[in-house]
Amino acid sequence: MRSTKRPSNRSNRVAQLVRPLVRALHPYVPGEQPKIRGLIKLNTNENPYPPAPRVLRTVQAAVDGRLRLYPNPSAEGLRAKLAQLHRCRPENIIVGNGSDELLALAVRAFVEPNARRKMPDAKWAKATVQYFTPSYSLYPVLAEIHGAATNAVPLNADFSLPGVADLKRRKHWDFNAALTLVTTPNAPSGRGYSRKALETLCQAQRGVIVLDEAYVDFADAHALPLALRHPQVLVARTFSKAYSLCFQRVGYLVGHPELIGALHKIRDSYNVNGLGQIAAEATLDNLAYYRANFRRIIATRGWLAGELTKLSFQVLPSQTNFILVRPPQFPAEIWLQSLRANRVLVRWFGAPEVRDYLRITIGTRAEAASLVSAARKILAGGGRIASTKWAG
Amino acid sequence: MRSTKRPSNRSNRVAQLVRPLVRALHPYVPGEQPKIRGLIKLNTNENPYPPAPRVLRTVQAAVDGRLRLYPNPSAEGLRAKLAQLHRCRPENIIVGNGSDELLALAVRAFVEPNARRKMPDAKWAKATVQYFTPSYSLYPVLAEIHGAATNAVPLNADFSLPGVADLKRRKHWDFNAALTLVTTPNAPSGRGYSRKALETLCQAQRGVIVLDEAYVDFADAHALPLALRHPQVLVARTFSKAYSLCFQRVGYLVGHPELIGALHKIRDSYNVNGLGQIAAEATLDNLAYYRANFRRIIATRGWLAGELTKLSFQVLPSQTNFILVRPPQFPAEIWLQSLRANRVLVRWFGAPEVRDYLRITIGTRAEAASLVSAARKILAGGGRIASTKWAG
Repeated sequence: MRSTKRPSNRSNRVAQLVRPLVRALHPYVPGEQPKIRGLIKLNTNENPYPPAPRVLRTVQAAVDGRLRLYPNPSAEGLRAKLAQLHRCRPENIIVGNGSDELLALAVRAFVEPNARRKMPDAKWAKATVQYFTPSYSLYPVLAEIHGAATNAVPLNADFSLPGVADLKRRKHWDFNAALTLVTTPNAPSGRGYSRKALETLCQAQRGVIVLDEAYVDFADAHALPLALRHPQVLVARTFSKAYSLCFQRVGYLVGHPELIGALHKIRDSYNVNGLGQIAAEATLDNLAYYRANFRRIIATRGWLAGELTKLSFQVLPSQTNFILVRPPQFPAEIWLQSLRANRVLVRWFGAPEVRDYLRITIGTRAEAASLVSAARKILAGGGRIASTKWAG
Repeated sequence: MRSTKRPSNRSNRVAQLVRPLVRALHPYVPGEQPKIRGLIKLNTNENPYPPAPRVLRTVQAAVDGRLRLYPNPSAEGLRAKLAQLHRCRPENIIVGNGSDELLALAVRAFVEPNARRKMPDAKWAKATVQYFTPSYSLYPVLAEIHGAATNAVPLNADFSLPGVADLKRRKHWDFNAALTLVTTPNAPSGRGYSRKALETLCQAQRGVIVLDEAYVDFADAHALPLALRHPQVLVARTFSKAYSLCFQRVGYLVGHPELIGALHKIRDSYNVNGLGQIAAEATLDNLAYYRANFRRIIATRGWLAGELTKLSFQVLPSQTNFILVRPPQFPAEIWLQSLRANRVLVRWFGAPEVRDYLRITIGTRAEAASLVSAARKILAGGGRIASTKWAG
């Protein structure tokens, strides 16, 4: 109980120093990074395999007196290597502090922060961030932080991409939206989209469109050429997931130099840490190691899908390093808790279109086997949250 | 010569996809990070001494499989250690991707992006970023990127802080500005300000005020207690300069949990890379090493000031790891080039109030001695840019 009103008044007065827009925000909640040992962590789509030994040695060797110096401000060396890989020029590339930073920069560079202001209908599009649902849950958060309007349009019921004719018929889609963000392959469903379908959508869009390919290394196809063919298209990539570098925060965007240049103008001067730049460059020198891991993860994905199907899970087709599954018998949220009680951490989202599903990261074969065992145990026990000695 | 108008038209059309505000920006130009070996780099205020050996060993030992995992999203471990150091709570602290990121976040959290819009006079303050000139040249850049108004008010002619009574008399200062940024000790002059003078200013300010203490470890006094005493005051610190960690991008802000919480809401989810967090934590376990280096740098600063004074440079008093000097006989810009021709890189700013000065980072004693030799040589040669074999 408070004895006086003072602290509360003071706190209110301090809150007035914050913009009303920011005061009203609910922060984005990232997937849990648990501190408990022995937990099988299949909740944030990290790669189960470490970086290549040569990458680790290169980074270790770089930990010396140079840490006192500023890193290259525009990640020049890394951009040169990426340009070679993607057959474009360094001017087509910006590197970010993870691809999250680049998505935030895109919102700030291409979208007017006018959502709450009265504007003529024709101008609304300039303030609109558009995306499909479900997709990466960060998109609406970035729009809200900026004060932009959002236009969330449902994917088809099976999470496939609606065709342009269909979008036109439905009317809700905005072909003039300042910025459209497409997670491809889709998260959290895992669904892949063909380059052709994406190109048709891109060609119909008059604003900027970002193809967010965070998981593309686990897919059959990618759409990077679209970023070099159509000036309004940017492709986002990251070293986090496929290249086992979440810890060091390195992502990049490929696209037209005019759009890339706009993002360079508004980023922090030294936005990419030096050891991250070195790790990413070394990664590009060791791609064979990572490609072998992609094949292992894809094989485990197939095995896990088969095993869970046998246990009556409905498993959606996946082109990523995770699968979206509809578990049998009990609500997905109960499964989340039951699996956690069995030391397996997966992800559940409360949004209506996915609340019946669990998203499971593809770990090692042993981790996948542990998940299957836990699922069997839960089914046998009638879904009760096992009361183990371990309290989560 | 262009044979058709096409590329230009297309480029114009692409430019239309960028917000007019961003199209009009001139990007901030950070100090040069030269790739030429053997250059004595006294231009970006880096520490001449490497991180503590134990810090390097700790970081090396952390370069392993954990790089595949996301780092702690709010730098919990580091915030706990910083809270202990500053005798506050972790809720009083936010860690950023360098303090530059935090300054940008402060602009976005506390200042309305309304500079170009017609608003009643009373509301202008809400859209105003205020600072003294000269100070950190990034401030107006951050305001422009956000679309905020700027209020730049000159320091006294000797770069000392104008008193509150004086600011009231001059009328140009805005006591209601949404955000006031004060570089203390000042850059690029090196001038230090007393805690008392800063507190008087803070108490008169009704908006948020950031005391940007990037160089405070080289000063006689600091003002951190003001961030815990006055809810509108934030103090910015960085591991870059004093703690030899520019490469890894770690800075932080201390202040009222309400303001700190607002900044957490709008930052990227994983804004601080993992090895940076580990390096900064290890740094706090080895402060004695760094404090010994501060004393060496301060001693070299005294020696260099004496030597340059003998050569008729006017040396301003400094509380930082750099000195601002007015060189004799030739314009400062010529000195910049002549020193570069002698392989010594210093910094020159074109702004009117400092264009007669050079800013020289305090390096090792040997580097300072090289600078003095080069200055003697230039004075002896009549300021000509020596035509060495090396072409910069």
